[in-house]
Amino acid sequence: MKELEDRIQRDGQVMAGGILKVDSFVNHQVDAGLMDRCGKAFAERFAELGATKVLTAEISGIAPALTTALHLGIPVVYARKSKPITMPDQVYLTLAPSHTKGRTVELIISPEYLAHGEKVLIIDDFLASGATILGLIRLAEAAGAKVVGVGALIEKTFEGGREALGKLGLPVVSLTAISSMDGGRIVFSGH
Amino acid sequence: MKELEDRIQRDGQVMAGGILKVDSFVNHQVDAGLMDRCGKAFAERFAELGATKVLTAEISGIAPALTTALHLGIPVVYARKSKPITMPDQVYLTLAPSHTKGRTVELIISPEYLAHGEKVLIIDDFLASGATILGLIRLAEAAGAKVVGVGALIEKTFEGGREALGKLGLPVVSLTAISSMDGGRIVFSGH
Repeated sequence: MKELEDRIQRDGQVMAGGILKVDSFVNHQVDAGLMDRCGKAFAERFAELGATKVLTAEISGIAPALTTALHLGIPVVYARKSKPITMPDQVYLTLAPSHTKGRTVELIISPEYLAHGEKVLIIDDFLASGATILGLIRLAEAAGAKVVGVGALIEKTFEGGREALGKLGLPVVSLTAISSMDGGRIVFSGH
Repeated sequence: MKELEDRIQRDGQVMAGGILKVDSFVNHQVDAGLMDRCGKAFAERFAELGATKVLTAEISGIAPALTTALHLGIPVVYARKSKPITMPDQVYLTLAPSHTKGRTVELIISPEYLAHGEKVLIIDDFLASGATILGLIRLAEAAGAKVVGVGALIEKTFEGGREALGKLGLPVVSLTAISSMDGGRIVFSGH
């Protein structure tokens, strides 16, 4: 997606430890119009899959997942990283290492909102190592739901996420794919 | 907003401690279409204020704040509750007691995304005691920004939030207002 590539090139910042900071339009501050166009792009790419629910992880997946759900006309569920008091005692919980947090985080979904037989489209901001998305897939499977596709705003192709997801045979769509950030220079795949 | 009232009446659950659980359409699972219509309603109500940015608090404020920002054509900033590694060392930070978490939480904004002179519209899911919204107002003031309005999906009129905000002289808009949840029965103002 050209618009998102251009925005990353202009406003993304490569930080120490291979972190791409996109806090000015995806994470801390969100460009709502851009997120809406990204959600529309995901909805078009995944329109044929018959998804009944979008699944993401709080916090930074919420914006693109919400706009995708809006364009598909289905609800979105975001996995919580801590259990709120409104959640029942019996939950689906998995652990996933977080690159940006430098520790393992919990991903928790209430059985109330993910049912056996649902078709789940997973949307997140980044596809890097794939650890968060694999965690969401485990949660969906625990609920007896079927994951039908995976979408990410930004793929870092050099962190192995696509390979980690590969054996599942799912359609994996990234709106932008970064093949290198060496020396602080962002290079997109195919450029 | 009749649609939101009806949904709360149908799917909201009154829990112990005066908590209204709306996890099936606002918090854990989000009805994207409903959130879009709520955002449109806020945008219409606040259209004349010339807001340059929507401000909310992660996590549950993000959905209505994002759709409001989308309909106003401006960005949204969500205050973080923990400082990510992408955030600079010097931040705006305030403390706010959280009713649902039963403890005080930090609200943190990077000075990169809230500037002197900005006109800020605050949107959140609940207006209860007003503690979170007052925290967001303190952050905006610390940045030299001007808060021009406050919107909430659900006001609990018996928890004093509107009175706490009253002395600031801001327009405060709630799409639904609950005057009582005694005995588990949800009563809306004016009904």
